[in-house]
Amino acid sequence: MTIYKAPLDDQRFALFDVLGAEAVLTRLQGGEGHTRDLLDAVLEEAARLSEQVLAPTNESGDAEGCRYDKETRTVATPKGFKEAFKAFAEGGWAGLTMPEKFGGQALPAVMGTATTELFQSGNLAWSLYPLLSEGACHAMELHGTEEQQHVYLKPIVEGRWTGTMCLTEPQAGSDLGLLKTRAEPAADGSYRITGTKIFISAGEHDLAENIVHLVLARLPDAPAGSRGISMFIVPKFKVNADGSPGERNAASAGAIEHKMGLHGCSTCVMNFDGAEGYLIGQPNKGLAAMFTMMNAARLAVGVQGLALSERAYQNSLNYARERLQGRALSGPRLPDKPADNLLVHPDVRRMLLTQRAFVEGSRLIVLYAALQTDLEARAADPAERQRAGELLAFLIPIAKGVVTELAQECTKEALQVYGGHGYIGENGMEQFVRDARIITLYEGTTGIQAADLLGRKILQLKGVGFRHFLDEIGAFCQAHGQDEALRPFVGPLAAAARQWGELTQQLAQRVQANPEELGAAANDYLYYSGYVTLAYFWARSVAAAEAGGRGAAFKQAKRDAATFYFARILPRIHAHKAGIEAGVATLPEIA
Amino acid sequence: MTIYKAPLDDQRFALFDVLGAEAVLTRLQGGEGHTRDLLDAVLEEAARLSEQVLAPTNESGDAEGCRYDKETRTVATPKGFKEAFKAFAEGGWAGLTMPEKFGGQALPAVMGTATTELFQSGNLAWSLYPLLSEGACHAMELHGTEEQQHVYLKPIVEGRWTGTMCLTEPQAGSDLGLLKTRAEPAADGSYRITGTKIFISAGEHDLAENIVHLVLARLPDAPAGSRGISMFIVPKFKVNADGSPGERNAASAGAIEHKMGLHGCSTCVMNFDGAEGYLIGQPNKGLAAMFTMMNAARLAVGVQGLALSERAYQNSLNYARERLQGRALSGPRLPDKPADNLLVHPDVRRMLLTQRAFVEGSRLIVLYAALQTDLEARAADPAERQRAGELLAFLIPIAKGVVTELAQECTKEALQVYGGHGYIGENGMEQFVRDARIITLYEGTTGIQAADLLGRKILQLKGVGFRHFLDEIGAFCQAHGQDEALRPFVGPLAAAARQWGELTQQLAQRVQANPEELGAAANDYLYYSGYVTLAYFWARSVAAAEAGGRGAAFKQAKRDAATFYFARILPRIHAHKAGIEAGVATLPEIA
Repeated sequence: MTIYKAPLDDQRFALFDVLGAEAVLTRLQGGEGHTRDLLDAVLEEAARLSEQVLAPTNESGDAEGCRYDKETRTVATPKGFKEAFKAFAEGGWAGLTMPEKFGGQALPAVMGTATTELFQSGNLAWSLYPLLSEGACHAMELHGTEEQQHVYLKPIVEGRWTGTMCLTEPQAGSDLGLLKTRAEPAADGSYRITGTKIFISAGEHDLAENIVHLVLARLPDAPAGSRGISMFIVPKFKVNADGSPGERNAASAGAIEHKMGLHGCSTCVMNFDGAEGYLIGQPNKGLAAMFTMMNAARLAVGVQGLALSERAYQNSLNYARERLQGRALSGPRLPDKPADNLLVHPDVRRMLLTQRAFVEGSRLIVLYAALQTDLEARAADPAERQRAGELLAFLIPIAKGVVTELAQECTKEALQVYGGHGYIGENGMEQFVRDARIITLYEGTTGIQAADLLGRKILQLKGVGFRHFLDEIGAFCQAHGQDEALRPFVGPLAAAARQWGELTQQLAQRVQANPEELGAAANDYLYYSGYVTLAYFWARSVAAAEAGGRGAAFKQAKRDAATFYFARILPRIHAHKAGIEAGVATLPEIA
Repeated sequence: MTIYKAPLDDQRFALFDVLGAEAVLTRLQGGEGHTRDLLDAVLEEAARLSEQVLAPTNESGDAEGCRYDKETRTVATPKGFKEAFKAFAEGGWAGLTMPEKFGGQALPAVMGTATTELFQSGNLAWSLYPLLSEGACHAMELHGTEEQQHVYLKPIVEGRWTGTMCLTEPQAGSDLGLLKTRAEPAADGSYRITGTKIFISAGEHDLAENIVHLVLARLPDAPAGSRGISMFIVPKFKVNADGSPGERNAASAGAIEHKMGLHGCSTCVMNFDGAEGYLIGQPNKGLAAMFTMMNAARLAVGVQGLALSERAYQNSLNYARERLQGRALSGPRLPDKPADNLLVHPDVRRMLLTQRAFVEGSRLIVLYAALQTDLEARAADPAERQRAGELLAFLIPIAKGVVTELAQECTKEALQVYGGHGYIGENGMEQFVRDARIITLYEGTTGIQAADLLGRKILQLKGVGFRHFLDEIGAFCQAHGQDEALRPFVGPLAAAARQWGELTQQLAQRVQANPEELGAAANDYLYYSGYVTLAYFWARSVAAAEAGGRGAAFKQAKRDAATFYFARILPRIHAHKAGIEAGVATLPEIA
């Protein structure tokens, strides 16, 4: 059995001390009430739900998994999932960040991110059911008609129904332009959807009365490729005039996948056999509509990396404290015990500090990005809105691509601290590794994130968000240049940021000469960017901790982690610099 | 279903072209017959067994797993395992490297390593049954009486019985000094063994007539800690006067573990309830006796990393060739197809070349180390024997610690190439990741390997093996300094080797001042050492390929992989250098 305690203290530090969220949020349109007191209370409620209701179902849900019934084509979720979903719905969490007109609470996106972390730490597999709903809600909010919103969105916000996103097909994964699912117009203005979708998270389950599928498909006269894709609402049960679920639609799960992890989440093959569907948004603009949700979806997957790493870290720290094995090299620390605990070994501390540096740094990346979502949506000044949107677009591939990769390392190190006991199912550590393995794959692989960062956010958009971010780092270094407490961090941060800019310039020129250089450098560029971003947030963390309001131990712990990060992790940029500079000639064709 | 084709061509290149194994082996005592023809034939037979008998049981064995019967305390292995073990025994593989007097074939250790790679690629879980036997055989060969060898060793060599090593207890893992299992002398000169051992691979199964457990336990008057441990032979069935298995001994499996992977291998909790056992070797010298087998055992685990990486790599390369998704950035390569294959993406090639560089480089590390085993055992010149032993001792923590860690990266990248399909059980890639996760843990965690390399092999033994290795690298660089084809490699290799020596010197001084500096630097030192070692073997590979006898495509492929390695992987040493230099102050105490 693994432990989990919501890291409220560090969340508050990140939100309020480092990012100044209260000041930001209360000056946004409609944000007058979003005071620290309110946000604190929300965090505490979310923590309670996660610790008491979700966390206990994590390991049992993995062991039990979902069961698919061939006869009825239905899926039974593991024990406790229904009750947890009921508690989630009753607590109003399904509509936490949704507009009040749909029954939501209109809380800031950053609170959605913070509470999502807690729920995902509690039980990642379970948390995918509401998460997919959230994506579907946003799509309908942005692209649905008023009637569609009333019929399909509202019940999700109320926690009675859930939603899905049906994109992938066997031959169309990263390359959605290849998708084949067809939509034939019917006489009544609806469409008949026919095709097979795979990897549909929460495609079928027993948690809710109805499931609203958002399906990408082609109209009969659609252009080939990605410009000929439209989006359709396809409910599991067609909806009666009174809004209640009626007749079964011809949309059903044909199977569920046997996956490495996330056993509690039903990942479905969805068969649409002339299912009734309704066009949402413009014809042939479905991919663009889907992409409007991509920022939120990718950010949420980044948060999954944070959430798994946090819980894995808590357990490995706890184990290192309790496990007695070996002696300190400089002499026994617990002479009365048969051995010292694992914490006396510097290499064990290295594994723990690696996790800590990544966990707390990643938390700042995702919360900072989420805060840009709020600024983009509700800042009074249009220029500020635009800047936030540009920053957000730039940060998303880092928040998704890097945080999920760091989670691979965190969960691996957490397991490693356990030695052979980490390999045993009952100790729970191997589940974190298995669950984490999906997050660098779905919602765009790491390769896709890297290409998005370098190809789109840097080159296509001329690095506008990147420049905002470099400006911020520059301003921070300027402001703290004379600050004694920050001296060990400001210099290396400024140097790394400067080099980041230079490498970006050089790379842009090389890609201009040969577009293949983009693919050759993108992965290393993504990591390079991630490590500098973490350095910035660790420097800010030290500054915020120094600024007071916290005890000496807290301050020292932040400083220790930052010192560790700058000395032992940030130097990885040297290796990634070499990768950026190596060029496509070092990646020759393979026959 | 995954594919597997024994990499005979690369094995031959490594053995004969790079390492000149034929010349080395045929000049050793008793090695006159070990010609390339003979060794080739052995490899081909092993390849056949692996490809045709073992490989098809890999995924089904994982899905089925071992079943433990509480009533009889027995374990049923998955379908096909018994037949595979029978074929293995009948082929004489159980005694491949054992002396002829025990019924073995007395082939060189390096052939044991090469064939073990093939068997482990075929089915790692299955391969643990004979692997553990091998360790037990070596122990009895070195420490058993003639009678013990006749009764317990011979049947294992003949493939009728198997063996185990019973070390770990719940409270005693890396720290064996804590073990509590007791051995009480009986009137007949035997002992009664009482205690619980955990994580006993192949502790109980249905593949063989009898199981010979080598158990570490304490005599009544034994000193505390690791100097009071003795080794005992404890058979599952006591042996009749005619050598046949007789009465059941009080040694049985109390449970099998539910593990992340290796489901086909029974990992047992072994209960010894006053079981009859026989002292082997000297009283209180059991740990030292066990450690005489450690080199072979750790090398074999390094080979597991290679074996899993090789098979994972073959599959990801195959998938990248066949999967059509997206288009090359510089324009379509397969305009007649709906999309290009994954190989057109430089980032996919990066993932494939990473695997290739690690797989083929690791193969040279483990074969080179194994060759030192042969030299140590059978070189005519005592000085050559000593040098080989010193080199071997130095290389073991690299072959185990680094190769197993690289296997984590290889199997991860191999899965990543599949995108979301990598997460699906039926595609077989996630099993490689799960199976690989144990190898950085058992036979000494990576932390233990790092401490062994820096603490024992470098500092305690004054780096004698390290100096031999640096001399070899120096001689190689000298010999090829003017070689145009090697110019891109010799310079960087020589520089890295020089810096390796300097860092070692500085570190030795710091550790002298504060022993905690050892633990603070060991992990980064291990990686640093591993990456330079790989650089050396990649440079040697280019030299060997240039030396001829191979086609232009083979030569170019070796050069490409070496170029990739030097440009994009070797620079990781910069980050590890920072870790080595950071010092224990960056790893402060954790309360």
